[in-house]
Amino acid sequence: MRVAVLGGDGFVGWPTALHLSAQGHDVVIVDSLVRRQIDGELDVQSLTPITSPKERRDAWKEISGRWIELVRIDLATDYDQLRSWLLTWRPDALVHLAEQRAAPYSMKSPRHKRYTVDNNVNGTHNLLAALVETGLDAHLVHLGTMGVYGYSSVGAPIPEGYLPVSIELPGGRRAEQEILYPSNPGSIYHMTKCLDQILFAYYAKNDGLRITDLHQGIVWGTNTPETLADERLVNRFDYDGDYGTVLNRLLMQAAIGYPLTVHGTGGQTRAFIHITDSVRCIELALGSPPAGGDRVKIFNQMTETHRVRDLATLIAEMTGAEIANVTNPRKEAAENDLVVENQQFLELGLEPTTLSAGLLDEILNVAKRYRHRVDTRHIPCVSAWTEEIAQALARERRPQLKVIGGEGD
Amino acid sequence: MRVAVLGGDGFVGWPTALHLSAQGHDVVIVDSLVRRQIDGELDVQSLTPITSPKERRDAWKEISGRWIELVRIDLATDYDQLRSWLLTWRPDALVHLAEQRAAPYSMKSPRHKRYTVDNNVNGTHNLLAALVETGLDAHLVHLGTMGVYGYSSVGAPIPEGYLPVSIELPGGRRAEQEILYPSNPGSIYHMTKCLDQILFAYYAKNDGLRITDLHQGIVWGTNTPETLADERLVNRFDYDGDYGTVLNRLLMQAAIGYPLTVHGTGGQTRAFIHITDSVRCIELALGSPPAGGDRVKIFNQMTETHRVRDLATLIAEMTGAEIANVTNPRKEAAENDLVVENQQFLELGLEPTTLSAGLLDEILNVAKRYRHRVDTRHIPCVSAWTEEIAQALARERRPQLKVIGGEGD
Repeated sequence: MRVAVLGGDGFVGWPTALHLSAQGHDVVIVDSLVRRQIDGELDVQSLTPITSPKERRDAWKEISGRWIELVRIDLATDYDQLRSWLLTWRPDALVHLAEQRAAPYSMKSPRHKRYTVDNNVNGTHNLLAALVETGLDAHLVHLGTMGVYGYSSVGAPIPEGYLPVSIELPGGRRAEQEILYPSNPGSIYHMTKCLDQILFAYYAKNDGLRITDLHQGIVWGTNTPETLADERLVNRFDYDGDYGTVLNRLLMQAAIGYPLTVHGTGGQTRAFIHITDSVRCIELALGSPPAGGDRVKIFNQMTETHRVRDLATLIAEMTGAEIANVTNPRKEAAENDLVVENQQFLELGLEPTTLSAGLLDEILNVAKRYRHRVDTRHIPCVSAWTEEIAQALARERRPQLKVIGGEGD
Repeated sequence: MRVAVLGGDGFVGWPTALHLSAQGHDVVIVDSLVRRQIDGELDVQSLTPITSPKERRDAWKEISGRWIELVRIDLATDYDQLRSWLLTWRPDALVHLAEQRAAPYSMKSPRHKRYTVDNNVNGTHNLLAALVETGLDAHLVHLGTMGVYGYSSVGAPIPEGYLPVSIELPGGRRAEQEILYPSNPGSIYHMTKCLDQILFAYYAKNDGLRITDLHQGIVWGTNTPETLADERLVNRFDYDGDYGTVLNRLLMQAAIGYPLTVHGTGGQTRAFIHITDSVRCIELALGSPPAGGDRVKIFNQMTETHRVRDLATLIAEMTGAEIANVTNPRKEAAENDLVVENQQFLELGLEPTTLSAGLLDEILNVAKRYRHRVDTRHIPCVSAWTEEIAQALARERRPQLKVIGGEGD
């Protein structure tokens, strides 16, 4: 299959491109490389020393004998280039990961809010418009988020995209319908994934595009079998307050002797998936396209749920790290339950890699190995959801490094 | 009250600005004037000879003694200017009509699709982000569309924005919830109003913005008491295939002796509202802001529903015009029923101006008076919803002018 991985230089994109290439697909990466620019903007770097796009692709060629082309296109701004490339390369499938994907970054300032909306909506819409204009019948697999559902469930497990409801009609009759699960985003970033859903539903209905939307939980872990094949293939590990996700961030904190920062009470229950499963799910989704017609196929791409404070306790017990409850920069419920259906991927053969001491240890070792690369000033989450929260954060004394881990220690 | 009318040079915006000014409010128009540019792009003009932004505002000053300032800002691109202006002028309320509002125009080409999404989403989002950044507690009244609901009702009257549903829980229990009515847009334009809804819901929840969304039916008529006060105040009358709305278009066709073009069987049932009521509804919404908190207030801004072929028959009987059933450029159900709730505006005192021979005659007279300004080449709707429909339209023989009405005839 000819597969384009849009955003294929990123955290999920890179191991996805390698895995699909290893499976024998003809893979091209389409990426604007803006994520590397944002590292510069934030003055941070991946905890792991990721190599340049060229070096990592050369290394893959050396190891696998397979070449992955890189096409530099910004989906949000380079429509004509996107269209020409589609007509030339004619992909069978597109994996769309080319969006700004950090909730805290999307809340950092009005500029960041506006960038996230503009970039994500126009990028996704340009892709859809270009597929219609070129007449390509490629399967589009998009990475959504569990966050489209919101975290305040009605008490029923969150279904995979569509919710059966009963509506009262005149005369006491009732109509049974299946509707797109009502969206309830918790940040500007999550909101853009809700907007994407509306775009997909429309283009599937009007133009018959074949679209799969993967509502993913929080990804943890760093490497996959392919990125472990050579150090130059190492995957990105974000530890900063904007791009670092909770489990990886806690492990990095344990590795350098920084208190485990838990937002509020840590009563937030979240859905998780290991990076290896994330990549595997994308492969499974590619192998199981919707028949076409007018409905987007939606999967919940997660394998387990955990409460944040339970994760912190687990890691504290493993490592002896302290826990620091800090002001939550997000406007959200302090505590929530979360039950999620994920039957579809299990039926397609996914064997979940769930949280285990062994895997946590592996990540801890990655974090320890590169801890000299951590800039502790960038650990706290300082992007606040409202002005009121920003003021509370500014007043708060930040946790301090307890153990200074030296280089080579 | 200090009210800004965004898009105040347009078809609904101009009579709204005049009416609010006449009611004693301090009114400013914020407009990029792009709608006049689009007339140039399409090589058409309003059937009525609208005057320049300066001349119409000078005339209003002469007649009413009241001055309406014009601020040229493009919401989608001039964020910094928007923010500065908000901080200087400090409106109590904003009426947001500054979006690309024609469904056929939004389907004209990939460029038009992309412009409509980019312009409408970024314009609305910039406004929301600027309100949060400036901390202004202004009431935002936005013009949505009945089209967010789609035209295939579940069999119950369409409620005003929120639908009560019953959801099955484990153990046979049920949860009763009110959700945002599931959106089902019929064009790229309508889709952008669905995206707006998600933006509004988010900003109301996270930032407490006070927002009212008016889901309006198809507007008919031209003038309001204020635009009739002087010929220089005349309102826009679009008759072309992109911007002309169905009832006004049929009346114009009758006035010039062109067959009344009915798309498909004309079995589409649509919601309608007279321009005078549209303006009055906006006034009523401004006087009844949401208390704040976290929910957007939604009104259905329509007064009656009609099937398109019934309107064509009515006008044919009035005028002796022929009816021509032509290929429907839209991808939609050939026939639909539509029942809509509009209790909220009636309770606030709206006295509907419903379809009557007298009013139709008035519009017919406007059309007759200016028929020398019609370019019949631009009457057919040629913007097709899909490539397949575009080909069918290209094969079809167009209706011809039966009676040539000369100037002064």
